[in-house]
Amino acid sequence: MPPVVEIRRVSKYAGQEVILQGWLYNLRESGKLLFPLFRDGTGIIQGVVVKKAVPPEVFEAVRSLTQESSVRVTGKVRADQRAPGGFELDVVNVQVEQRISPEAPYPITPKDHGVEFLMDHRHLWLRSTRQRAILGVRHEIIKAVRDFFDDRGFTLVDTPIFTPAACEGTTTLFEVSYFEDKAYLTQSGQLYNEAAVMAVGKTYCFGPTFRAEKSKTRRHLTEFWMVEPEVAFAHLEDIMALGEELIAFVVARVLEKRRPELQVLERKIDKLEKIQLPFPRMSYEEAVKILQSKGSEIQWGGDFGGTDETLLSESFEKPLIVHRYPSQVKAFYMAPDPTRPEVALCVDVLAPEGYGEIIGGGERMTDLALLEQRIQEEKLPREAFEWYLDLRRYGSVPHSGFGMGIERVVAWICGLEHVRETIPFPRMLYRLKP
Amino acid sequence: MPPVVEIRRVSKYAGQEVILQGWLYNLRESGKLLFPLFRDGTGIIQGVVVKKAVPPEVFEAVRSLTQESSVRVTGKVRADQRAPGGFELDVVNVQVEQRISPEAPYPITPKDHGVEFLMDHRHLWLRSTRQRAILGVRHEIIKAVRDFFDDRGFTLVDTPIFTPAACEGTTTLFEVSYFEDKAYLTQSGQLYNEAAVMAVGKTYCFGPTFRAEKSKTRRHLTEFWMVEPEVAFAHLEDIMALGEELIAFVVARVLEKRRPELQVLERKIDKLEKIQLPFPRMSYEEAVKILQSKGSEIQWGGDFGGTDETLLSESFEKPLIVHRYPSQVKAFYMAPDPTRPEVALCVDVLAPEGYGEIIGGGERMTDLALLEQRIQEEKLPREAFEWYLDLRRYGSVPHSGFGMGIERVVAWICGLEHVRETIPFPRMLYRLKP
Repeated sequence: MPPVVEIRRVSKYAGQEVILQGWLYNLRESGKLLFPLFRDGTGIIQGVVVKKAVPPEVFEAVRSLTQESSVRVTGKVRADQRAPGGFELDVVNVQVEQRISPEAPYPITPKDHGVEFLMDHRHLWLRSTRQRAILGVRHEIIKAVRDFFDDRGFTLVDTPIFTPAACEGTTTLFEVSYFEDKAYLTQSGQLYNEAAVMAVGKTYCFGPTFRAEKSKTRRHLTEFWMVEPEVAFAHLEDIMALGEELIAFVVARVLEKRRPELQVLERKIDKLEKIQLPFPRMSYEEAVKILQSKGSEIQWGGDFGGTDETLLSESFEKPLIVHRYPSQVKAFYMAPDPTRPEVALCVDVLAPEGYGEIIGGGERMTDLALLEQRIQEEKLPREAFEWYLDLRRYGSVPHSGFGMGIERVVAWICGLEHVRETIPFPRMLYRLKP
Repeated sequence: MPPVVEIRRVSKYAGQEVILQGWLYNLRESGKLLFPLFRDGTGIIQGVVVKKAVPPEVFEAVRSLTQESSVRVTGKVRADQRAPGGFELDVVNVQVEQRISPEAPYPITPKDHGVEFLMDHRHLWLRSTRQRAILGVRHEIIKAVRDFFDDRGFTLVDTPIFTPAACEGTTTLFEVSYFEDKAYLTQSGQLYNEAAVMAVGKTYCFGPTFRAEKSKTRRHLTEFWMVEPEVAFAHLEDIMALGEELIAFVVARVLEKRRPELQVLERKIDKLEKIQLPFPRMSYEEAVKILQSKGSEIQWGGDFGGTDETLLSESFEKPLIVHRYPSQVKAFYMAPDPTRPEVALCVDVLAPEGYGEIIGGGERMTDLALLEQRIQEEKLPREAFEWYLDLRRYGSVPHSGFGMGIERVVAWICGLEHVRETIPFPRMLYRLKP
């Protein structure tokens, strides 16, 4: 029996007979020749079936294959410079696992389908070249992020999904019946990270987070993945540097490992190649002035909307670091700038090309009394935060961290218009299936 | 200014002055000498403060430090073979970030505390040497699992947390209000993996899963992490081999990288060193006979309880692979054995030393008509499974996979009595805080 080989590995079997297992991606017929394209999830290869060279039933079996029919194909690997992957398969035999009947064909055809149709068929849509390319880039981004932190001595701490209290307000929380009690799905692991960082010095969590936002925009999912590093004894400057290094590292890794996928996505490579350190930085104050000069209505004290973020970032080819926003627009745990307490020691990183905020974070408040006061001002349930306040009672140290939303990074690096394609099975306001 | 150095890196600074940032772990006084133990999350180092060698206020500042007070310490690194890490710090100066008052001391003292007290103080308990060791081993296990699959060409596919339907019955599902609708928290990414695997050939998901189980045992959490690989064209034999290789790989990695942590946990290293391929295998049928010979009441057709699993695995030093359980005790999607349809092509792997099932999986049913029949028999809502049935309509292929529960693996490798210590912030029937 010839060896069973993955398409990505055929180059090692040139001149040999192998078995490929996969699906028919496309079929072209030219007289007494058939050119089936096979895919197996690791790659695509063109087969060649010569009528005279195979038994009639093999020729007929290939000829009658329909899109996405599953097969085991035996053939000889032949180097061919004209072939997309550099190799073709001279088909000797085929074993059809399942032929899809032409009467009930594979629902997704090369013609255009509407978005709702494709989303309803997400379980099949994932098989398209474009969606597989996005899955590959997403995989690489996640791996790069984990390697970045692991190689720098961060300890992964999986923070809980079920939480008793809200980190930043309760209006966008998903509520769960938890036996006789109620629980909320996490929006951020940060508060737990702050506990863990006092144990391990440098930590990150990386998991799904949830936001019951009734927005139906191209940037919002109800379920999305976030990586959140936290560093003890780190100040705003340190965490800005960490964020910028992370982004540059991730982009470089994708450029190194996923060029074919970026080509499938028709991503402009030169735009990604410009993502080199250092990134431009400005204070919120400077940003407001720039926005006003560009015609925005924003006044000091207001938060940036999506349009403001796009306006701001469009002058830069790299991610833009904006720091020291007014405390009033930021979460209660942000440390105030000691020289100007009305602004917080916080940072947002805006992706280029209008992709908006990809990182948000800053230095955390260490002062117990101030934190108690802020919790009261925000009318948060004090009792639920007692354990968090313990972190300021017992060996409080300066510490900083940020969150980076994976789907927005995937959207930016892949150059996608909508986050719905960034995650295998997107969940949105009106989308809970499949 | 001397460089700020992590304790794990002090060996590179022997003879030099450095700044360490961390917490007081312990303090011993001996006449005109102080021996503070400092920890920073990356390691522990003993400091030496000689009264004559430092200004009186420095000596006094160190002498009055309480457990878990936070400090920045300046000192010279000195190699000392007697020291636990091989180095000590001759303290020159100390900057106290926060001294915890002796009137309201750090709540966790070296004396024994009850489990409930420690669980209520989990946010602080994580700082203990034992808990940090577990966090380190958990980190390594997770990294090893991801490396294992990434290096073998698997594509990570994050399956959804919000699901419209139940994978295996509805009694243990957590229900979420999803805007005007209802959603359930995932118990397994498997069904989605089965869609993804037709796109990418080999996939895994790795995320939190949820089970609203009212059991209060040492093996149950309501929120736990699971890795689930799925492979197209793989049969039961292939997936048994994959599972056994994964386990051996993970154990070897922990032994290679985390010996100090295993020592802290007083884990018997020789027991882990025996986890070498191949693992023992037996059919359910053989297992039932062994159990009966050991006095169990089990009859053919019954599922194993925790006691049965312990009885079975105690004769082996390696994980035990049990295959081909009766279909009636397994999920609807399990493929029947073609030679004996009353048993399923499924597999469980039982950890040694009574740690129970760590892997469960098998070959999936590919036949559309049979799957439809099973869904009806189980009274599952057919409509919710239409997309899943599509996978059998369009290019169905044999495929297999399994799930491995991370917390049980952590419990086994660390030698823990209870899963509550395997995850940073455990969630159980009566435990939702902190």
